[in-house]
Amino acid sequence: MSENKFMRMAIELSKESVARGGGPFGAVIVRNGEVVASGSNSVTLLNDPTAHAEVSAIRAACQVVGSFDLKGCEIYSSCEPCPMCLSAIYWAGIERIYYANTRDDAAAIGFDDDFIYDQIPLAPAERTIPSLPLMRTEGLEAFHLWVHKTDKVEY
Amino acid sequence: MSENKFMRMAIELSKESVARGGGPFGAVIVRNGEVVASGSNSVTLLNDPTAHAEVSAIRAACQVVGSFDLKGCEIYSSCEPCPMCLSAIYWAGIERIYYANTRDDAAAIGFDDDFIYDQIPLAPAERTIPSLPLMRTEGLEAFHLWVHKTDKVEY
Repeated sequence: MSENKFMRMAIELSKESVARGGGPFGAVIVRNGEVVASGSNSVTLLNDPTAHAEVSAIRAACQVVGSFDLKGCEIYSSCEPCPMCLSAIYWAGIERIYYANTRDDAAAIGFDDDFIYDQIPLAPAERTIPSLPLMRTEGLEAFHLWVHKTDKVEY
Repeated sequence: MSENKFMRMAIELSKESVARGGGPFGAVIVRNGEVVASGSNSVTLLNDPTAHAEVSAIRAACQVVGSFDLKGCEIYSSCEPCPMCLSAIYWAGIERIYYANTRDDAAAIGFDDDFIYDQIPLAPAERTIPSLPLMRTEGLEAFHLWVHKTDKVEY
Protein backbone atom coordinates (compact mmCIF):
# COMPACT_ATOMS: atom_id res chain seq x y z
CA MET A 1 0.00 0.00 0.00
CA SER A 2 1.71 3.21 -1.14
CA GLU A 3 0.29 5.28 1.75
CA ASN A 4 2.31 3.11 4.13
CA LYS A 5 5.42 3.44 2.00
CA PHE A 6 5.32 7.25 2.11
CA MET A 7 4.51 7.32 5.82
CA ARG A 8 7.41 4.97 6.46
CA MET A 9 9.66 7.51 4.70
CA ALA A 10 8.33 10.34 6.89
CA ILE A 11 8.89 8.27 10.03
CA GLU A 12 12.40 7.35 8.90
CA LEU A 13 13.14 11.07 8.47
CA SER A 14 11.84 11.75 11.98
CA LYS A 15 14.21 9.16 13.45
CA GLU A 16 17.20 10.36 11.42
CA SER A 17 16.41 13.88 12.59
CA VAL A 18 16.76 12.87 16.25
CA ALA A 19 20.13 11.28 15.47
CA ARG A 20 21.26 14.49 13.75
CA GLY A 21 20.22 16.74 16.64
CA GLY A 22 16.92 17.99 15.22
CA GLY A 23 13.39 17.50 16.55
CA PRO A 24 11.64 14.12 16.14
CA PHE A 25 9.51 15.03 13.13
CA GLY A 26 9.62 14.25 9.42
CA ALA A 27 7.34 14.96 6.44
CA VAL A 28 7.07 13.94 2.80
CA ILE A 29 5.07 15.67 0.05
CA VAL A 30 3.71 13.48 -2.74
CA ARG A 31 2.00 14.24 -6.04
CA ASN A 32 0.62 11.60 -8.39
CA GLY A 33 2.30 8.84 -6.41
CA GLU A 34 5.75 10.43 -6.55
CA VAL A 35 7.75 12.19 -3.85
CA VAL A 36 8.10 15.90 -4.59
CA ALA A 37 10.15 16.88 -1.53
CA SER A 38 10.66 16.09 2.15
CA GLY A 39 11.72 17.82 5.33
CA SER A 40 12.52 17.28 8.97
CA ASN A 41 12.42 19.48 12.05
CA SER A 42 15.51 21.71 12.04
CA VAL A 43 14.42 24.39 14.55
CA THR A 44 17.47 24.09 16.78
CA LEU A 45 19.90 23.18 13.99
CA LEU A 46 19.03 26.25 11.88
CA ASN A 47 17.91 28.64 14.62
CA ASP A 48 14.57 28.86 12.86
CA PRO A 49 11.43 28.31 14.96
CA THR A 50 9.41 27.91 11.76
CA ALA A 51 11.58 25.06 10.44
CA HIS A 52 9.14 22.32 11.37
CA ALA A 53 9.10 19.22 9.17
CA GLU A 54 5.94 20.20 7.28
CA VAL A 55 6.93 23.84 6.70
CA SER A 56 10.38 22.69 5.56
CA ALA A 57 8.84 20.14 3.17
CA ILE A 58 6.38 22.72 1.81
CA ARG A 59 9.13 25.27 1.17
CA ALA A 60 11.26 22.62 -0.55
CA ALA A 61 8.36 21.30 -2.64
CA CYS A 62 7.46 24.80 -3.83
CA GLN A 63 11.02 25.30 -5.05
CA VAL A 64 10.85 21.95 -6.89
CA VAL A 65 7.59 22.75 -8.66
CA GLY A 66 8.35 26.47 -9.11
CA SER A 67 5.08 27.60 -7.58
CA PHE A 68 3.60 28.71 -4.26
CA ASP A 69 0.66 26.40 -4.97
CA LEU A 70 0.87 22.68 -4.15
CA LYS A 71 -2.53 21.76 -5.58
CA GLY A 72 -2.82 18.02 -6.12
CA CYS A 73 -0.26 17.25 -3.42
CA GLU A 74 -0.63 15.16 -0.27
CA ILE A 75 1.52 15.45 2.84
CA TYR A 76 2.68 12.54 4.99
CA SER A 77 3.78 13.77 8.40
CA SER A 78 5.22 11.65 11.20
CA CYS A 79 3.06 13.73 13.59
CA GLU A 80 -0.26 15.54 13.38
CA PRO A 81 0.66 19.04 12.16
CA CYS A 82 0.83 21.85 14.72
CA PRO A 83 -1.40 24.89 13.98
CA MET A 84 1.47 26.67 12.19
CA CYS A 85 2.04 23.71 9.89
CA LEU A 86 -1.67 23.03 9.42
CA SER A 87 -2.18 26.65 8.38
CA ALA A 88 0.81 26.43 6.03
CA ILE A 89 -0.80 23.32 4.51
CA TYR A 90 -3.96 25.35 3.87
CA TRP A 91 -2.01 28.26 2.38
CA ALA A 92 -0.11 25.84 0.12
CA GLY A 93 -3.32 24.23 -1.15
CA ILE A 94 -2.28 20.70 -0.15
CA GLU A 95 -5.28 18.42 -0.50
CA ARG A 96 -4.80 15.59 1.98
CA ILE A 97 -2.93 14.98 5.24
CA TYR A 98 -1.71 11.67 6.64
CA TYR A 99 -0.19 11.68 10.13
CA ALA A 100 1.22 9.09 12.56
CA ASN A 101 1.69 10.56 16.06
CA THR A 102 -1.02 12.82 17.44
CA ARG A 103 -0.81 16.31 18.95
CA ASP A 104 -1.38 14.69 22.35
CA ASP A 105 1.63 12.43 21.74
CA ALA A 106 3.66 15.57 20.92
CA ALA A 107 2.42 17.35 24.04
CA ALA A 108 3.37 14.30 26.13
CA ILE A 109 7.04 14.68 25.15
CA GLY A 110 7.11 18.43 25.77
CA PHE A 111 6.04 20.10 22.52
CA ASP A 112 3.50 22.94 22.70
CA ASP A 113 1.26 21.89 19.80
CA ASP A 114 -1.76 21.27 21.97
CA PHE A 115 -1.31 24.50 23.95
CA ILE A 116 -1.12 26.56 20.75
CA TYR A 117 -4.20 24.77 19.33
CA ASP A 118 -6.06 25.96 22.42
CA GLN A 119 -4.79 29.55 22.04
CA ILE A 120 -5.70 30.11 18.37
CA PRO A 121 -9.52 30.20 18.69
CA LEU A 122 -9.46 32.62 21.65
CA ALA A 123 -10.16 36.32 21.24
CA PRO A 124 -6.88 38.28 21.06
CA ALA A 125 -7.46 39.72 24.54
CA GLU A 126 -7.85 36.24 26.06
CA ARG A 127 -4.57 34.80 24.78
CA THR A 128 -1.39 34.48 26.83
CA ILE A 129 0.42 36.81 24.38
CA PRO A 130 -1.06 40.33 24.59
CA SER A 131 -2.27 41.49 21.18
CA LEU A 132 -3.02 45.16 20.69
CA PRO A 133 -4.68 47.01 17.76
CA LEU A 134 -2.92 50.14 16.55
CA MET A 135 -3.21 52.56 13.58
CA ARG A 136 -5.74 50.60 11.53
CA THR A 137 -6.65 53.62 9.39
CA GLU A 138 -3.04 53.99 8.23
CA GLY A 139 -2.71 50.21 7.83
CA LEU A 140 -5.64 50.06 5.45
CA GLU A 141 -3.74 52.23 2.97
CA ALA A 142 -1.71 49.21 1.84
CA PHE A 143 -4.92 47.21 1.33
CA HIS A 144 -6.33 50.02 -0.83
CA LEU A 145 -3.13 49.99 -2.89
CA TRP A 146 -3.52 46.20 -3.28
CA VAL A 147 -7.16 46.39 -4.33
CA HIS A 148 -6.41 48.99 -6.99
CA LYS A 149 -3.26 47.32 -8.33
CA THR A 150 -4.13 45.92 -11.74
CA ASP A 151 -1.13 43.60 -12.28
CA LYS A 152 -1.05 41.84 -8.90
CA VAL A 153 -0.45 38.10 -8.44
CA GLU A 154 -3.29 36.91 -6.21
CA TYR A 155 -3.23 33.78 -4.09
CA MET B 1 5.15 57.30 21.03
CA SER B 2 7.57 54.56 19.96
CA GLU B 3 4.76 52.04 19.36
CA ASN B 4 3.48 54.29 16.58
CA LYS B 5 6.96 54.69 15.15
CA PHE B 6 7.45 50.94 14.80
CA MET B 7 3.95 50.39 13.45
CA ARG B 8 4.56 53.13 10.90
CA MET B 9 7.64 51.16 9.76
CA ALA B 10 5.58 47.96 9.41
CA ILE B 11 2.91 49.81 7.41
CA GLU B 12 5.56 51.39 5.20
CA LEU B 13 6.93 47.91 4.47
CA SER B 14 3.43 46.70 3.58
CA LYS B 15 3.03 49.50 1.05
CA GLU B 16 6.50 49.03 -0.44
CA SER B 17 5.69 45.31 -0.74
CA VAL B 18 2.66 46.04 -2.94
CA ALA B 19 4.81 48.24 -5.19
CA ARG B 20 7.40 45.44 -5.48
CA GLY B 21 4.81 42.78 -6.38
CA GLY B 22 4.47 41.12 -2.96
CA GLY B 23 1.42 40.88 -0.72
CA PRO B 24 0.26 43.97 1.26
CA PHE B 25 1.78 43.00 4.60
CA GLY B 26 4.82 44.12 6.61
CA ALA B 27 6.21 43.30 10.06
CA VAL B 28 8.94 44.59 12.36
CA ILE B 29 10.46 42.80 15.37
CA VAL B 30 11.70 44.97 18.23
CA ARG B 31 13.67 44.25 21.38
CA ASN B 32 14.46 46.84 24.06
CA GLY B 33 13.24 49.65 21.83
CA GLU B 34 15.44 48.67 18.89
CA VAL B 35 14.54 47.03 15.58
CA VAL B 36 15.96 43.50 15.36
CA ALA B 37 14.66 42.60 11.88
CA SER B 38 11.75 43.13 9.53
CA GLY B 39 9.92 41.31 6.76
CA SER B 40 7.24 41.66 4.16
CA ASN B 41 4.98 39.21 2.36
CA SER B 42 6.98 37.53 -0.42
CA VAL B 43 4.78 34.49 -1.13
CA THR B 44 4.47 35.08 -4.85
CA LEU B 45 7.93 36.65 -5.27
CA LEU B 46 9.74 33.69 -3.66
CA ASN B 47 7.27 30.89 -4.45
CA ASP B 48 7.02 30.28 -0.71
CA PRO B 49 3.52 30.10 0.80
CA THR B 50 5.07 30.45 4.28
CA ALA B 51 6.82 33.73 3.43
CA HIS B 52 4.28 35.93 5.20
CA ALA B 53 5.59 39.16 6.71
CA GLU B 54 5.65 37.86 10.29
CA VAL B 55 7.27 34.49 9.46
CA SER B 56 9.85 36.30 7.31
CA ALA B 57 10.60 38.76 10.11
CA ILE B 58 10.87 35.94 12.68
CA ARG B 59 13.26 33.96 10.51
CA ALA B 60 15.40 37.07 9.92
CA ALA B 61 15.38 38.08 13.59
CA CYS B 62 16.48 34.60 14.67
CA GLN B 63 19.46 34.81 12.33
CA VAL B 64 20.36 38.23 13.77
CA VAL B 65 20.24 37.07 17.38
CA GLY B 66 21.62 33.59 16.67
CA SER B 67 18.81 31.79 18.46
CA PHE B 68 15.46 30.16 17.77
CA ASP B 69 14.10 32.00 20.84
CA LEU B 70 12.91 35.61 20.54
CA LYS B 71 12.14 36.08 24.22
CA GLY B 72 11.83 39.75 25.11
CA CYS B 73 10.80 40.69 21.57
CA GLU B 74 7.63 42.39 20.34
CA ILE B 75 6.23 42.19 16.82
CA TYR B 76 4.56 45.03 14.95
CA SER B 77 2.50 43.70 12.06
CA SER B 78 0.58 45.76 9.54
CA CYS B 79 -2.20 43.14 9.84
CA GLU B 80 -3.47 40.83 12.56
CA PRO B 81 -1.40 37.66 12.14
CA CYS B 82 -2.97 34.69 10.36
CA PRO B 83 -3.01 31.39 12.33
CA MET B 84 0.30 30.30 10.75
CA CYS B 85 2.01 33.51 11.81
CA LEU B 86 0.32 33.61 15.21
CA SER B 87 1.52 30.05 15.88
CA ALA B 88 5.03 30.99 14.69
CA ILE B 89 4.93 33.91 17.13
CA TYR B 90 4.13 31.44 19.94
CA TRP B 91 6.89 29.06 18.86
CA ALA B 92 9.37 31.96 18.73
CA GLY B 93 8.49 33.12 22.25
CA ILE B 94 7.58 36.66 21.14
CA GLU B 95 5.91 38.44 24.04
CA ARG B 96 3.63 41.08 22.54
CA ILE B 97 1.79 41.68 19.27
CA TYR B 98 0.73 45.01 17.78
CA TYR B 99 -1.38 44.93 14.62
CA ALA B 100 -3.09 47.49 12.36
CA ASN B 101 -5.51 45.82 9.93
CA THR B 102 -7.71 43.01 11.22
CA ARG B 103 -8.28 39.49 9.91
CA ASP B 104 -11.68 40.68 8.68
CA ASP B 105 -9.96 43.42 6.70
CA ALA B 106 -7.68 40.76 5.18
CA ALA B 107 -10.65 38.52 4.35
CA ALA B 108 -12.39 41.48 2.70
CA ILE B 109 -9.57 41.81 0.14
CA GLY B 110 -9.43 38.08 -0.60
CA PHE B 111 -6.99 36.56 1.93
CA ASP B 112 -8.01 33.35 3.70
CA ASP B 113 -6.95 34.25 7.24
CA ASP B 114 -10.46 34.16 8.62
CA PHE B 115 -11.33 30.89 6.86
CA ILE B 116 -8.21 29.18 8.26
CA TYR B 117 -8.96 30.55 11.75
CA ASP B 118 -12.31 28.80 11.52
CA GLN B 119 -10.73 25.53 10.32
CA ILE B 120 -8.05 25.15 13.04
CA PRO B 121 -10.32 24.38 16.03
CA LEU B 122 -12.34 21.76 14.13
CA ALA B 123 -11.77 18.04 14.60
CA PRO B 124 -9.57 16.68 11.79
CA ALA B 125 -12.53 14.85 10.25
CA GLU B 126 -14.58 18.07 10.06
CA ARG B 127 -12.02 20.17 8.17
CA THR B 128 -12.11 20.82 4.42
CA ILE B 129 -8.72 19.06 4.04
CA PRO B 130 -9.10 15.34 4.84
CA SER B 131 -6.71 14.30 7.60
CA LEU B 132 -6.07 10.62 8.17
CA PRO B 133 -4.21 8.81 10.98
CA LEU B 134 -1.73 6.13 9.89
CA MET B 135 1.00 3.98 11.53
CA ARG B 136 1.03 5.67 14.94
CA THR B 137 2.84 2.75 16.58
CA GLU B 138 5.76 3.09 14.19
CA GLY B 139 5.64 6.88 14.46
CA LEU B 140 6.07 6.77 18.22
CA GLU B 141 9.51 5.17 17.79
CA ALA B 142 11.01 8.59 17.00
CA PHE B 143 9.41 10.05 20.12
CA HIS B 144 10.93 7.26 22.22
CA LEU B 145 14.34 8.00 20.69
CA TRP B 146 13.82 11.68 21.57
CA VAL B 147 12.80 11.00 25.16
CA HIS B 148 15.85 8.82 25.75
CA LYS B 149 18.34 11.10 23.99
CA THR B 150 20.50 12.65 26.72
CA ASP B 151 22.15 15.49 24.74
CA LYS B 152 19.08 16.92 23.00
CA VAL B 153 18.39 20.64 22.59
CA GLU B 154 14.82 21.13 23.85
CA TYR B 155 12.58 24.02 22.93
